[in-house]
Amino acid sequence: MRAEIIAIGSELLLGQIVNTNAKFLSQHLAEMGIPVYYHTVVGDNADRLKQAIEIAESRSSLIIFTGGLGPTKDDLTKDTIAKHIGVELELHEQAMNMIEKYFQKANRTMTENNRKQAMVLKNATILSNDYGMAPGMLYKNETHYYMLLPGPPKELEPMFMQYGRDALLNELDEQQVIKSKVLRFFGIGEAQLETEIEDIIDEQSNPTVAPLASNGEVKLRLTAKHMSEQEADKLIQALEEKIKKRIGQYLYGYNDSSLMGEVVRLLKSHNKTISIAESLTGGSFSAELTSFPGISENFFGGIVCYSNEAKKDLLHVQQNTLDSSGAISSECAAEMAVNIREKLKTDIGISFTGVAGPDPSEGKDVGTVWIGLSFKGREPYTFPLQLAGTRQSIRMRTTKYGCYYILKHFLA
Amino acid sequence: MRAEIIAIGSELLLGQIVNTNAKFLSQHLAEMGIPVYYHTVVGDNADRLKQAIEIAESRSSLIIFTGGLGPTKDDLTKDTIAKHIGVELELHEQAMNMIEKYFQKANRTMTENNRKQAMVLKNATILSNDYGMAPGMLYKNETHYYMLLPGPPKELEPMFMQYGRDALLNELDEQQVIKSKVLRFFGIGEAQLETEIEDIIDEQSNPTVAPLASNGEVKLRLTAKHMSEQEADKLIQALEEKIKKRIGQYLYGYNDSSLMGEVVRLLKSHNKTISIAESLTGGSFSAELTSFPGISENFFGGIVCYSNEAKKDLLHVQQNTLDSSGAISSECAAEMAVNIREKLKTDIGISFTGVAGPDPSEGKDVGTVWIGLSFKGREPYTFPLQLAGTRQSIRMRTTKYGCYYILKHFLA
Repeated sequence: MRAEIIAIGSELLLGQIVNTNAKFLSQHLAEMGIPVYYHTVVGDNADRLKQAIEIAESRSSLIIFTGGLGPTKDDLTKDTIAKHIGVELELHEQAMNMIEKYFQKANRTMTENNRKQAMVLKNATILSNDYGMAPGMLYKNETHYYMLLPGPPKELEPMFMQYGRDALLNELDEQQVIKSKVLRFFGIGEAQLETEIEDIIDEQSNPTVAPLASNGEVKLRLTAKHMSEQEADKLIQALEEKIKKRIGQYLYGYNDSSLMGEVVRLLKSHNKTISIAESLTGGSFSAELTSFPGISENFFGGIVCYSNEAKKDLLHVQQNTLDSSGAISSECAAEMAVNIREKLKTDIGISFTGVAGPDPSEGKDVGTVWIGLSFKGREPYTFPLQLAGTRQSIRMRTTKYGCYYILKHFLA
Repeated sequence: MRAEIIAIGSELLLGQIVNTNAKFLSQHLAEMGIPVYYHTVVGDNADRLKQAIEIAESRSSLIIFTGGLGPTKDDLTKDTIAKHIGVELELHEQAMNMIEKYFQKANRTMTENNRKQAMVLKNATILSNDYGMAPGMLYKNETHYYMLLPGPPKELEPMFMQYGRDALLNELDEQQVIKSKVLRFFGIGEAQLETEIEDIIDEQSNPTVAPLASNGEVKLRLTAKHMSEQEADKLIQALEEKIKKRIGQYLYGYNDSSLMGEVVRLLKSHNKTISIAESLTGGSFSAELTSFPGISENFFGGIVCYSNEAKKDLLHVQQNTLDSSGAISSECAAEMAVNIREKLKTDIGISFTGVAGPDPSEGKDVGTVWIGLSFKGREPYTFPLQLAGTRQSIRMRTTKYGCYYILKHFLA
């Protein structure tokens, strides 16, 4: 089974909304082992939809349509498909009853065009709509499967998860299991990572290896197919070991984890507290940390010391340090980290100072960064960075490096 | 000119990312008067991409490709297009220099595959990449336009706005000018806004009026067409006046401005300083404020006082206040705002305290928020909010309300 998703709706082509349905369905189809080869978006136009269906039929066996099941003139998905594949539409009594009840409940008069929503392809499997009026359906002929789903994500998503997914799984003849696992790396560029494991990528077949870079991180998705779930897991594990031997020092987490999420996990599992002194990052590290619920047990507070005065007045950085080394220095980063940790009596103190740009500062280039890290009972660590990019990207990657150094040195 | 957008990337078909580029480009093409008839997504596969190009050529005159311009083996957009339309790729010296400099600056070794990013279609118009390495391009033959843009939105969006848009406008034969202006509102819901100007929306033709709600704000985009730029401006101005008479009190800015951007403009134009005390928002307000370059003249520092101890130790909130009113109270918000302002000797102090959830706190519901605002020489203001939504959305909207109150009361 090879899938294509056709979204119908001029609002997508006008850029008024994003096609999140395609992402949602693709993700779940991938997990079910059904490869998606194309997404198509077409407007509310019968001729163009018909052509899109013909193209899809020539290259895919499962075509999933999203949108165009509503009551208005624009909603022409069902009519167009019915005509194209030569199947009649018939009234679905149960859906009609639900629609009538909906209007009674809302104390509104049902206009005649709402009957249209209860019309379904004859002999299709009906997918109930628990969050709206138009039912979905799965229709099957000798050559293709046609699945029709409503456009609003709040109707489509539960419909697919509750009914659509199982309807498809019932049709899959092969009982292969697909398992996938994402390995998350930091501190290594995409090109370098691929160079390190080029032979593994070239030889891939089962499991497959797909790299994806974003926001200074690189992910590798390993996907294995097997008749046995256990064997699929084993295939992934063997490949993971092989990759870890090459670039394991950059691996920080799996699947949906994040660098800050790993820091939170570490703080919680070891019952440790942290405090934060931010100059360069201006509160970004604290903001991201406090986006995690329940973090108040591990984080009491921090100081944003943007000016030298704030560094002295709020954080007691010595005038001498600022005079001799400057605020953008290993010495200042170390003092900031130690002082915030002592001030708030936490196990860890971390600090960020540097030049986000666009202009240099203290004669230091944009992208010059010092991170300070103080663990109770240990000498402070400091880490220099030289980052390229925009102000935002320098700040964003600085906070990621902060997480990375905590993870690397916490258990050292 | 009729457009089609082809996104290349298996990560889209695996549902790992959403195709926001298609939305972004569609929206801007619509404003430029170029209709988009199809979006297509295809994986990192040369044969399937070639077929997608052939289909697109049969139905569109402008084909915009997004993604696949990077250094890895997966990035096959340029090669496939070059082969398909019979044009050579050549090294773009300027791009190559930029890539080399990037690696020198980041102190990383440039692997050989990065050269690939500097290869461009011969005779194409080059679109500079100010936020990444791979340049974009616009190539034109007798029958079609081919525009190639990088996949990451943070590279694609500025490239299109700075260079791609003009390159296309130069090719459009009709000399009508399209002008648009965005009015930005806060403190009014989308439904209420639409009700207030329902007749204006219903009567629209030139200028058109498009409402768009996102992240607690509502935008109205006014777009006028005319042979004369001056007349187009006049059409927009007349409509803007009409709208302002109805809902002008909620208007806070234009076009790409933001609430925080307006706060920064106000601080700069009046040469005022601000300090920040954050509990609920955990540093988010400071982080957003310091995303603006040059803000160090107006912002010295802040305190993130997440725990009651930090409120007392770092900010000297009185124990008595915490005992009698609690941390989530008008009294605490007022003390936080006054104390941070006095501590850092600024003109303005602002504070945030509340319950972000998921659990209630101090017997107060999730979404209970107090914002404190202290101007030098005035009694402090405090503002209660009761917000619905997730932890992130409560925090995000709280920072927006903070900006809104500063803007509203600064000149009062």
